[in-house]
Amino acid sequence: MEKQFEGFRANLEESSRLRERIRVVAAEMESVTRIMHSNLLLVHQSLPISEVLEKAAGQIEKLKGLYGRLAEILHECPGQYYRYHGDWRSETQTAVSLVAFLHWLETGNLLAHEGAEKKLGLGDSEFGLDIEDYLIGICFMSNELPRYVVNQVTAGDYDSPRKVLKFLTDLHAAFRMLNLRNDFLRKKFDGMKYDLRRVEEVFYDVKIRGLSPVDAAQEQTQQT
Amino acid sequence: MEKQFEGFRANLEESSRLRERIRVVAAEMESVTRIMHSNLLLVHQSLPISEVLEKAAGQIEKLKGLYGRLAEILHECPGQYYRYHGDWRSETQTAVSLVAFLHWLETGNLLAHEGAEKKLGLGDSEFGLDIEDYLIGICFMSNELPRYVVNQVTAGDYDSPRKVLKFLTDLHAAFRMLNLRNDFLRKKFDGMKYDLRRVEEVFYDVKIRGLSPVDAAQEQTQQT
Amino acid sequence: MEKQFEGFRANLEESSRLRERIRVVAAEMESVTRIMHSNLLLVHQSLPISEVLEKAAGQIEKLKGLYGRLAEILHECPGQYYRYHGDWRSETQTAVSLVAFLHWLETGNLLAHEGAEKKLGLGDSEFGLDIEDYLIGICFMSNELPRYVVNQVTAGDYDSPRKVLKFLTDLHAAFRMLNLRNDFLRKKFDGMKYDLRRVEEVFYDVKIRGLSPVDAAQEQTQQT
Amino acid sequence: MEKQFEGFRANLEESSRLRERIRVVAAEMESVTRIMHSNLLLVHQSLPISEVLEKAAGQIEKLKGLYGRLAEILHECPGQYYRYHGDWRSETQTAVSLVAFLHWLETGNLLAHEGAEKKLGLGDSEFGLDIEDYLIGICFMSNELPRYVVNQVTAGDYDSPRKVLKFLTDLHAAFRMLNLRNDFLRKKFDGMKYDLRRVEEVFYDVKIRGLSPVDAAQEQTQQT
Repeated sequence: MEKQFEGFRANLEESSRLRERIRVVAAEMESVTRIMHSNLLLVHQSLPISEVLEKAAGQIEKLKGLYGRLAEILHECPGQYYRYHGDWRSETQTAVSLVAFLHWLETGNLLAHEGAEKKLGLGDSEFGLDIEDYLIGICFMSNELPRYVVNQVTAGDYDSPRKVLKFLTDLHAAFRMLNLRNDFLRKKFDGMKYDLRRVEEVFYDVKIRGLSPVDAAQEQTQQT
Repeated sequence: MEKQFEGFRANLEESSRLRERIRVVAAEMESVTRIMHSNLLLVHQSLPISEVLEKAAGQIEKLKGLYGRLAEILHECPGQYYRYHGDWRSETQTAVSLVAFLHWLETGNLLAHEGAEKKLGLGDSEFGLDIEDYLIGICFMSNELPRYVVNQVTAGDYDSPRKVLKFLTDLHAAFRMLNLRNDFLRKKFDGMKYDLRRVEEVFYDVKIRGLSPVDAAQEQTQQT
Repeated sequence: MEKQFEGFRANLEESSRLRERIRVVAAEMESVTRIMHSNLLLVHQSLPISEVLEKAAGQIEKLKGLYGRLAEILHECPGQYYRYHGDWRSETQTAVSLVAFLHWLETGNLLAHEGAEKKLGLGDSEFGLDIEDYLIGICFMSNELPRYVVNQVTAGDYDSPRKVLKFLTDLHAAFRMLNLRNDFLRKKFDGMKYDLRRVEEVFYDVKIRGLSPVDAAQEQTQQT
Repeated sequence: MEKQFEGFRANLEESSRLRERIRVVAAEMESVTRIMHSNLLLVHQSLPISEVLEKAAGQIEKLKGLYGRLAEILHECPGQYYRYHGDWRSETQTAVSLVAFLHWLETGNLLAHEGAEKKLGLGDSEFGLDIEDYLIGICFMSNELPRYVVNQVTAGDYDSPRKVLKFLTDLHAAFRMLNLRNDFLRKKFDGMKYDLRRVEEVFYDVKIRGLSPVDAAQEQTQQT
């Protein structure tokens, strides 16, 4: 009996050491995403997007490095990705939300799953980006949009509500196609409708006060 | 965006179907272990052990078959054992506790990890018995012993407390070598000391009343 | 054994007496901060700030006196500041939030840690203002700002949302630099973003209705 | 504002690093006390006390070394002992319970507060053994005694209940002199009466069956 438990002890301690190493990397990830989030928040203060993007880009490189370290650690225990997955998944969801928000600011489009993998240096067949983590990250990104739109309008960009509403409506419709289980992702998706509603309200405010560029243009045309 | 989400839909639905199939097997496992537990409980009513073992043996075969089906399902998604592991692990812990109790009744020894794998048809490199599940199952088995010892004494077997106490003391000492994290296994192990204490109390009762076979033998010698 | 426990009894009773004395001072602090809070709330009813400040200033003197008494008590047990710290820290956090709000009303700036110490008569090397208590107090102050801004707009001060938003955005960004543990301070800081969002919404309302002084000025220029 | 928060960041990070270093030492303490406890548990299996003591003695030296490391860490932040005290106090309570149990096995007497400090290498004016931690450790030790007495009687030592009962009665009476606040120590002390009651029951069992050596001696005398 003693010899067998000696083996268990070695096994459990190895697993503990592994978790400890993952914990260290996950803590660094948390710290990098926090800085990246700070940088991205400047967009609400109407800083030029190019400047915001530049600041954040450096952090993405750091994240990539950290995922590389994580991949190395997990490479030592093949087939156990999902055993330890819970120890860094919330950091991954935050990272996805940030790179997706950045991408949307740059292009106006949704960062695809493959694109997110590429940006974070994932996508290796052994160490990819879990689809549910990707989708949860996208839900988190959606939570930033109402605030963004409010601040853009305040800064005088009256066309942003229309653009954001279009994007968010499409995103919400795409999510609705999914048959979600009654879990965390489902709850996060359920929250997305409040973002949609808030953006609709802002769009309504802008329209009803004749501030929408389209309306303004029409009005001018009519007056001529 | 739509095409990508079409892919997610397919992916999530496949994962749901897999979970559903696992759920069906896990439910059957739960049912088989429940019957097996009922059979084993007869040992508390002092049925001949051979009869109890025979009844339970048939259920082990069924369990083996169910693990075979589980292995087939998981064979379809290599490297994802730990992704779905939570969906049948409590059934596995119960199964281990039962086959280990059976083995102890038969032999008086601890069923080793490898032995448990063999009995349940596990042990394939891809689909083995997780060590923590094995250890939790052993803790569950320990919970049966105080009741067993009380009923054995009631039925007139005054030597069982000594034997069970020896076994449980060794088992407890072996577990104490492990550096357990502050989790479910730790909590279950912490409960084992109450089993140990209870068996000690029964042994104490038997000794103090001079019912222990060793004492009785000594007394007889002295009287001679 | 008895003699030793006699010593423990004396020791525990002395510690109890100390706690009781601290409790009395802390209760007075709680009472003073409650009155001070009442006074400060008048600012939401648009009373002249000078009047509000005057009323509150008297309470600050009382607080200073109470901290003096606390310092005397703790002077009797050097090196045990943190042993009893929990017994008055929530009162200190409230006190910081009030003097910081007052200072902000007066100057539009954040009351620095050193300034808070000076106002409360702390800052002695032995009996200073714990940094976490200061930061929590600042978070509490931030919770007052959304209500303040709403009432100011109601009273016709359309420029206050801009000023408050500038202050709160800077404060939030400064806090984001900190690597907070997962504790009470972190939770309080997490709440600050709702204050920020609420102030943004008020600023948005004022802008979209053309009530912002800057817009009004521009409009006037255009009309000329 | 930024410069001030830069200072806070440095301050909080230093405090985090300190806590992390303490955490590492506390984890080693936990591991050493676990092994020491395993060694001491052998006393319940009636191993010769000298052997049990020898095994445990080596662990005490390790504990001493760890307290030395802790003292060094805390030496860097004078006056903040009680700020971080919560991070290792439960390990200290366990350590006290073990050295006190060991001392009792050796001498039959209570290990005094000063003696516990000496054994653990504490007692420095700056880094001593908190009295409440000592007392809680003594309560934990008392929890071992009922089990010890049961196993001693089982092993044929019929005089141990009398000795343990005398010790525990005196200890309980000494604790009763203390005016305990309604906290953790009070709760632990309240549990001591169950230990006392159990030992009384064992003593009763031994007496009523005429197994107590005193009675046996008397009986013999009477028979002669």
